[in-house]
Amino acid sequence: MNTHEQNKKKVVLAYSGGLDTTVIIHWLKANYDYEVIAVCVDVGQGKELDGLEERALNSGASKLYIEHVVEDFVDDYVVPTIKSGAVYEGKYLLGTSMARPIISKRLVDIALEEGAEAICHGATGKGNDQVRFELTIKALAPHLKIIAPWRIWDITSREDALDYCEKHHIPVPMKKNNSYSRDRNIWHVSHEGLDLELPEQEPQFDSLLQMSVTPEKAPDEATYIDLAFDKGVPTALNGETMSCTEILTALNDIGGKNGIGIIDIVENRVVGMKSRGVYETPGGTILYYAHRELEYLCLDKQTLAYKEMMSVKFAELVYSGEWFTPLREGLTAFVDSTQETVTGTVKLKLYKGNIQSAGATSPYSLYNESIASFTTGELYNHKDAEGFINLFGLPLKVRAMMLKSHGLSI
Amino acid sequence: MNTHEQNKKKVVLAYSGGLDTTVIIHWLKANYDYEVIAVCVDVGQGKELDGLEERALNSGASKLYIEHVVEDFVDDYVVPTIKSGAVYEGKYLLGTSMARPIISKRLVDIALEEGAEAICHGATGKGNDQVRFELTIKALAPHLKIIAPWRIWDITSREDALDYCEKHHIPVPMKKNNSYSRDRNIWHVSHEGLDLELPEQEPQFDSLLQMSVTPEKAPDEATYIDLAFDKGVPTALNGETMSCTEILTALNDIGGKNGIGIIDIVENRVVGMKSRGVYETPGGTILYYAHRELEYLCLDKQTLAYKEMMSVKFAELVYSGEWFTPLREGLTAFVDSTQETVTGTVKLKLYKGNIQSAGATSPYSLYNESIASFTTGELYNHKDAEGFINLFGLPLKVRAMMLKSHGLSI
Amino acid sequence: MNTHEQNKKKVVLAYSGGLDTTVIIHWLKANYDYEVIAVCVDVGQGKELDGLEERALNSGASKLYIEHVVEDFVDDYVVPTIKSGAVYEGKYLLGTSMARPIISKRLVDIALEEGAEAICHGATGKGNDQVRFELTIKALAPHLKIIAPWRIWDITSREDALDYCEKHHIPVPMKKNNSYSRDRNIWHVSHEGLDLELPEQEPQFDSLLQMSVTPEKAPDEATYIDLAFDKGVPTALNGETMSCTEILTALNDIGGKNGIGIIDIVENRVVGMKSRGVYETPGGTILYYAHRELEYLCLDKQTLAYKEMMSVKFAELVYSGEWFTPLREGLTAFVDSTQETVTGTVKLKLYKGNIQSAGATSPYSLYNESIASFTTGELYNHKDAEGFINLFGLPLKVRAMMLKSHGLSI
Amino acid sequence: MNTHEQNKKKVVLAYSGGLDTTVIIHWLKANYDYEVIAVCVDVGQGKELDGLEERALNSGASKLYIEHVVEDFVDDYVVPTIKSGAVYEGKYLLGTSMARPIISKRLVDIALEEGAEAICHGATGKGNDQVRFELTIKALAPHLKIIAPWRIWDITSREDALDYCEKHHIPVPMKKNNSYSRDRNIWHVSHEGLDLELPEQEPQFDSLLQMSVTPEKAPDEATYIDLAFDKGVPTALNGETMSCTEILTALNDIGGKNGIGIIDIVENRVVGMKSRGVYETPGGTILYYAHRELEYLCLDKQTLAYKEMMSVKFAELVYSGEWFTPLREGLTAFVDSTQETVTGTVKLKLYKGNIQSAGATSPYSLYNESIASFTTGELYNHKDAEGFINLFGLPLKVRAMMLKSHGLSI
Repeated sequence: MNTHEQNKKKVVLAYSGGLDTTVIIHWLKANYDYEVIAVCVDVGQGKELDGLEERALNSGASKLYIEHVVEDFVDDYVVPTIKSGAVYEGKYLLGTSMARPIISKRLVDIALEEGAEAICHGATGKGNDQVRFELTIKALAPHLKIIAPWRIWDITSREDALDYCEKHHIPVPMKKNNSYSRDRNIWHVSHEGLDLELPEQEPQFDSLLQMSVTPEKAPDEATYIDLAFDKGVPTALNGETMSCTEILTALNDIGGKNGIGIIDIVENRVVGMKSRGVYETPGGTILYYAHRELEYLCLDKQTLAYKEMMSVKFAELVYSGEWFTPLREGLTAFVDSTQETVTGTVKLKLYKGNIQSAGATSPYSLYNESIASFTTGELYNHKDAEGFINLFGLPLKVRAMMLKSHGLSI
Repeated sequence: MNTHEQNKKKVVLAYSGGLDTTVIIHWLKANYDYEVIAVCVDVGQGKELDGLEERALNSGASKLYIEHVVEDFVDDYVVPTIKSGAVYEGKYLLGTSMARPIISKRLVDIALEEGAEAICHGATGKGNDQVRFELTIKALAPHLKIIAPWRIWDITSREDALDYCEKHHIPVPMKKNNSYSRDRNIWHVSHEGLDLELPEQEPQFDSLLQMSVTPEKAPDEATYIDLAFDKGVPTALNGETMSCTEILTALNDIGGKNGIGIIDIVENRVVGMKSRGVYETPGGTILYYAHRELEYLCLDKQTLAYKEMMSVKFAELVYSGEWFTPLREGLTAFVDSTQETVTGTVKLKLYKGNIQSAGATSPYSLYNESIASFTTGELYNHKDAEGFINLFGLPLKVRAMMLKSHGLSI
Repeated sequence: MNTHEQNKKKVVLAYSGGLDTTVIIHWLKANYDYEVIAVCVDVGQGKELDGLEERALNSGASKLYIEHVVEDFVDDYVVPTIKSGAVYEGKYLLGTSMARPIISKRLVDIALEEGAEAICHGATGKGNDQVRFELTIKALAPHLKIIAPWRIWDITSREDALDYCEKHHIPVPMKKNNSYSRDRNIWHVSHEGLDLELPEQEPQFDSLLQMSVTPEKAPDEATYIDLAFDKGVPTALNGETMSCTEILTALNDIGGKNGIGIIDIVENRVVGMKSRGVYETPGGTILYYAHRELEYLCLDKQTLAYKEMMSVKFAELVYSGEWFTPLREGLTAFVDSTQETVTGTVKLKLYKGNIQSAGATSPYSLYNESIASFTTGELYNHKDAEGFINLFGLPLKVRAMMLKSHGLSI
Repeated sequence: MNTHEQNKKKVVLAYSGGLDTTVIIHWLKANYDYEVIAVCVDVGQGKELDGLEERALNSGASKLYIEHVVEDFVDDYVVPTIKSGAVYEGKYLLGTSMARPIISKRLVDIALEEGAEAICHGATGKGNDQVRFELTIKALAPHLKIIAPWRIWDITSREDALDYCEKHHIPVPMKKNNSYSRDRNIWHVSHEGLDLELPEQEPQFDSLLQMSVTPEKAPDEATYIDLAFDKGVPTALNGETMSCTEILTALNDIGGKNGIGIIDIVENRVVGMKSRGVYETPGGTILYYAHRELEYLCLDKQTLAYKEMMSVKFAELVYSGEWFTPLREGLTAFVDSTQETVTGTVKLKLYKGNIQSAGATSPYSLYNESIASFTTGELYNHKDAEGFINLFGLPLKVRAMMLKSHGLSI
């Protein structure tokens, strides 16, 4: 590194090794005269990382950080979201949304360590990810400059990017091909683009899926599993204590084979448009289901109902990249309080895309057979119901009398 | 009818022809000296009604009304609930809950016509149905007396009821048997009791199910259907215009065969306890799914999110028997307003318990391919995103600067 | 008008006659070669409109429309908001927010009639009003171009604007002075800027207020008024039937004299920052108060509670300029449904800034003295309360028993 | 105490020394053969406690506990409620509601220490307090029997109670008089009954008020105060560090003199009826106001809005006696999380019933003058607003285009 290079200001780049970020390195150096520090944050995208450093350096980066954060991702982002029950627009399990804050946080950490002036990301100008990256950066390091090439340069397609490479003699990391836009991590893989942009058409699942098979291709025999939770946190699978990451990994395999967790949705992006995507979340879908089954036993009616409404907001915040906000923190405090007794074991039956509960138990279960049973127990006096209904219905009776006195009816 | 009989005060009884209501007729006459007017409200329970009148008169009733209200039930109770998207505690599609108000309303209508003094129902003192019956009666005819024998008499089991019959020489309508407690109408059938009272055990679906088969027993080939909606109301199936009732009937058949809509839940009753039930809602589950698919196309983000929260409250009200309340009416007004553009067609694939969207279209779709597509269209300027994110993230940036000025971090 | 002038494309300008919009006319003609059609929408700002046309034409406009929409403003925007109970952030009665949609709607109407290509407004790049103007334009006429000079030109202060006038020989409508930034209509007047930008300082109310006096300067004798509502809509003041506009006008006078409705708030703008403002809403504050007093009598507990939560969202939408949205329309449908019985009369006592209820009556009142009274009436059986509490408290009891069985306590 | 007395089962009685609880002691001994342990929980009701023990023993109690819990009441019940911002039905500051849980908790503690079988309270069968007492008892000690004489005996009025005393030779603690039903503690005093039962009439405040004067009788000069908070908790008044109880006591005096916090409301009770009450909460009203003023500075828009909705539920829970519930605990966890930065000082002006902010400061203020100011600062780029509005308004534009394509308009 010569003196000029040493005095250069630095930019930290979210680097994947793909075509886009390869072009970006060159473009950053050409347009900003920055030293480019590439950072690849491993959230379980399942890509080969061998040779990535060489590729980054060859492309012009001065360094490559590879950050293994899968366990932190699962423990600090995924599990709190499972506990909250958040599902965006009734379907989407927030796989990409949850990953962006931890990726951005690592970028910020490195930018601060390196004394960088800016962070650069390769998210497009139409998507949610730009919002998620930048909100986290603003929340954690407000002084850092943010560079989003896709909103600046003239490259608007894969073809343009390849042309750029050719023009600047940049070795192209992958062959030109026509594929879906995907994002994968340990929790899920998303698919967008191509024929999916026509919501009137059924997705071609067989050529699409990466973590799972369609229900049709799943085994003809059901798979039973046992999942244990402690205060809402997954702790064991089939009787074996494991880390959340291990459980999720195992469930991805089991769920994927059984055709669990394939979602097709037309969703509303943060930036004001609808888009259509297909998501595979095999293990995550099982975890959400099991967790909720336990809550049915352990949460009272009011808490369950309030949490259900709250989780709509939680999902909205996570989807919009608002992880590092006071409101998300406040909602998590609420959620954690509700999870004090969400401890126990859930047995599930997985069969060709279906999850069915096959029995749940909890030391803190509020289900009480002697009350619920048809025959009278000591705890419940049938005659109490009359008084209950009389007072519960009193406002209706008063209203009816009032209406009647005016000759009105409902 | 002698003079004494003629001068008797009248009670209107919700009559099913089963053991319980047979005993109730005798008990009412013995304890209140009432003329008992039996009313069977047909909401699609699928029972044989031939011979019911004879049975009622033989048991001591002075009359039997048979009220066919299936179409009204579907149009005025089921469809508004579909439009609302209400699902109780994330699973239960409210089949029994929606039926009670229309049954009670018919009881009230007849009680008013007959000049009756009281209404009697056979719901137990532990369940939700007593609440639903009585709230509707209070809301529609506050002056009517309500008699709930199960909260009054000493009979506490099926055995006691049979003993009562024997003692009073009442012909027993059905043989003593040990079966689940069930409620069926055109929308669903519910199952409670026996082994279901042990939530740690998997239900024995094969012996339980009445409207559907398990996914395992469903055909190996998927079934595709087309459902059309107009302002949120189902109007056609597979291109054929039908009434909602016809559509629901057809979907019950199709869904049942494909193992759709079997639910197992530990739910919170209105009267303060948890209970466990299994529900079959084959056609209803399909209608809810299809309706939501259309909403994904036709509702904007904010309306969708608000409606999702509102539907938690809607479900709570319906579940609790609060149909004839100002709040339920207000929520329906909101829902109807949102449905103005929920018009279009949804294609669904049904396969062994799974529903997958296979494409949806609407003249009022807000999905706009030219905006959503990765390549820039005229409508969307990538550069706008920067300004959007800067202002959306401004509060986070200000907060971060404030924290930083105090040496604090998130 | 010469041929060139005739062929010019047109822009419709929201015109006030003040310095800003005077400069804008010149700037539009210079930079876009537009024919400028000035539109002054009268929402009760209380300014002299004589001579306004002359001034507009002298400044270079080809026409001036003066649109009197006060009554429509009150009936179609203010009254629905009163009925909703919407208050932004617990204090602000949305005076400016409600006016922007009707102003923009008139601009759009005229732009369509005139075949204009664009609409121009003089709102700054930091405020809420730009959002409100533009959202309404987008919602009503998506093809119209929007021009917001304050986000484009180099003028950043009053001084710059005066310099521009001098340079271009534009007669300055008003002398240079240093005053608060104000927005006034029939509902309120807002004040921002100068010393108000220091939230640590008390406002200098005496020099600030325009519609009202401080409580200190209000009369020593209380004023009593009677307000009648029909389905939530104000219909009479002190027994005299009047239009809503007349009632509001009269109440502005009465309320202003009594020091009612002066608000000082640090609020969160749509564009991501906090700002501090003082608002005077003398008549509006009284109308809100009276309307709510009637709701206490006429709405049941559940409706009142849900409406209270809903009104937070209603306020947010109105504040953010989202009047012409499906969600606002849906919420209004809900509100209207709740107002069916909000009919009656409220007596209020106004005294030095205070409003106190002095008695309210409604034919639809749900208050029932015979139930509420301490002595037992027929309608309410004290003994019912035991059953009610037993079931209402059952979940707590079950939880406590469960905790106890584990040796735990709350 | 003889052997029989020693072997008696015990009941713990919430004892005030008034007519009702005096009668109850006798009635309990006569009807249950209980040893009666009287407990007077001092929450600041401001009554003379001298001689109370003698009175209790003379009436037949075996013991009197006097429990001084004012500080705990303020710190553990009042302050969390202030932080939540909870106001029941928009007006009532929950004075009686908050006190019942701590009173019941002390009753339970003593019942457990004494090995009592039952707890007895003197709340009537129509009110909220029976619910609050009993829910807390159920939540804390589910095995304890609860005795509520007013729902059991034939005494239905003060006159009946006096007759009972005469018949049983019980010395009457106070002369027969005709007064309002009141509940007082350090936070407030409530008034119900007599002419207040006619909501069409203005209360006769001058004869009613106990903690405050009417605004008319307040001083002609305003009083200024400074209140400091740390994480939402009041810590100092006028620069002097004090306990919350001391601050509240001082503010009751200051607020009472200035006519602050007098409320007249027709509210919805838990037991299904509306009732009318007048509340005086002089110090509490000031604390709520000041706390909110600080939140305007320190909370971001989203947190403020969500907390506003949440506080409706918080108030409902406290009002209904659901303090010791998982949901209330969860909401408190949320609230506490939001209060991390609610630290600072608020200056208030009190004048004849009015509270006006006179300036607030916080080290964690999110108000940023350089952004909010009209002139452009570095942090805010006016041009960002265009992009923001374009994306914020994109759904409206797409909808408008869709409608237009069908010849429809809003």
